[in-house]
Amino acid sequence: MISRVPSCIVLGGGSFLGTNLCRRLAASGVRVRAFGRRCLFPNDLEGVEWYQGDFSDALVLAAAIETFEIVFHLVHNSTPQSANLDIPGDFQTVTATLALLELSRKLPIKRIVFVSSGGVLYGPAEKIPTPETAPTDPITAYGVSKLTIEKYLMLYERLHGLSFGILRVANAFGPFQTLIKDWGVIAVLISRAMHGQNIEIWGDGSVVRDYIFIDDVIDALVAASTNQSAERIFNIGSGTGRSLREVIGAIEAQLGTKLPITWKPGRPVDVPTSILSIDRARAQLRWSPKTSFEDGLAKTIQWWRCR
Amino acid sequence: MISRVPSCIVLGGGSFLGTNLCRRLAASGVRVRAFGRRCLFPNDLEGVEWYQGDFSDALVLAAAIETFEIVFHLVHNSTPQSANLDIPGDFQTVTATLALLELSRKLPIKRIVFVSSGGVLYGPAEKIPTPETAPTDPITAYGVSKLTIEKYLMLYERLHGLSFGILRVANAFGPFQTLIKDWGVIAVLISRAMHGQNIEIWGDGSVVRDYIFIDDVIDALVAASTNQSAERIFNIGSGTGRSLREVIGAIEAQLGTKLPITWKPGRPVDVPTSILSIDRARAQLRWSPKTSFEDGLAKTIQWWRCR
Repeated sequence: MISRVPSCIVLGGGSFLGTNLCRRLAASGVRVRAFGRRCLFPNDLEGVEWYQGDFSDALVLAAAIETFEIVFHLVHNSTPQSANLDIPGDFQTVTATLALLELSRKLPIKRIVFVSSGGVLYGPAEKIPTPETAPTDPITAYGVSKLTIEKYLMLYERLHGLSFGILRVANAFGPFQTLIKDWGVIAVLISRAMHGQNIEIWGDGSVVRDYIFIDDVIDALVAASTNQSAERIFNIGSGTGRSLREVIGAIEAQLGTKLPITWKPGRPVDVPTSILSIDRARAQLRWSPKTSFEDGLAKTIQWWRCR
Repeated sequence: MISRVPSCIVLGGGSFLGTNLCRRLAASGVRVRAFGRRCLFPNDLEGVEWYQGDFSDALVLAAAIETFEIVFHLVHNSTPQSANLDIPGDFQTVTATLALLELSRKLPIKRIVFVSSGGVLYGPAEKIPTPETAPTDPITAYGVSKLTIEKYLMLYERLHGLSFGILRVANAFGPFQTLIKDWGVIAVLISRAMHGQNIEIWGDGSVVRDYIFIDDVIDALVAASTNQSAERIFNIGSGTGRSLREVIGAIEAQLGTKLPITWKPGRPVDVPTSILSIDRARAQLRWSPKTSFEDGLAKTIQWWRCR
């Protein structure tokens, strides 16, 4: 018998994370389908089937996933920043995910790998770096939705044997992260600096985050799709924190120029410090981040220069 | 100025808990409205306004609650036993609660008091008696829904100043608990024994639960509606556990007869032992259970005799 690599569908496959994941999977020779409302980089998805559809349309979703074995769920219809402005809107992602789970338990799906949030799930954490066992009291609707989906994944495995993995990913950055949804601060800083545009930053730059290069996140996603340990939930970050001022300094050093920044009052959705403990992923996923922050930054700047 | 007692609306006011709560509030001279799909004991709700409506109908709900200050939220459209059979159905309670919160933040509501679950929220707990700070990994959809609602209550207070209290109530029993939904084991045992009917019990009777008499639960609900402590979440139970065999023995002793029981294989939704730590409620709500198990049982049997 020939051992066969499972086929994969990436929900939210046209996004920053999705594009990077699909490229990696396709490069490894796996059958990959990217599902989503829009594909940001169609020319960069060679070898990937693109399937246009809305995650909240259960019938379209069913048709898209039914011949696949591994489902990567990267969809969220809001951002940590926007979710609180429309909580019922953000909640639609939970409703749609429940429909996905109902479908999946009736299909021969081997595993669902879900991208949760390392940055907002824990709320203001007492323990830093924060382990997976810390209390989960999110202060954004985005975080509550992510947490609720995690709980349903645990329930569906228990009740229906639907295998899952959850990655609580820190602040990912790298190629294919654009300014859509105003998501990643590193993409914003690099892009605006290159275009000589003014940069608005909320807060005083003391906010500390755990930045992780996208290639390392993709390593973890792939590992979680086949991992056989008893653990299901893994923090994925660098394990170290950087203040926004340090990030700005590092970008300025690599670009050789001062960034034109306007500072604005801090937003209440921000927790002051978020750093993830990644001991569990190191031990159980046999994963560790391989790219230094500076190397990641250099690769990201290089990508922006070649656009 | 005359100090005024706040007006109260009880969502799920026609239920076991709701009937008891409405009667207590009405007896204290408060304006009380009971809202629900059906009223089990209309003749016992003297002084209570009955408002017929479906909790999932946001327009009806808005009309019902808009002139009230305290909202007691006792609604759940499934039971711990049935929820896993229709997870998306159970989830409708979360969706409807989110609509309630959206309404409430626009109204001058002083507090929402939510009845959560002490029995299923923690899942199989490591620490017994279980404190409020224990991990919350429910093994039923009912528990996941309750937990999600708790998280949204925390979020709405933080974002919109909507005050709340949460009671994680153990296995309540007492007058007005009927066999509808097959909910309370004590009601089932007493009722069937009195009617000489055979009793089916799942498991071997070793399952330990924390039984609390309804009057004590109502005390806690009233206390939580005005409590000013920094805590928001309280376990409400007796703080002690009883096996089902012990419960059966106590009922047999009071009825002076042997119960005709057929034992059936245990259900996977049952955690073996659930006992709540009630230290926080004692300290912060200045509440404690006042009715012994035997006295509660006697009052419950008395109620069934007078029906």
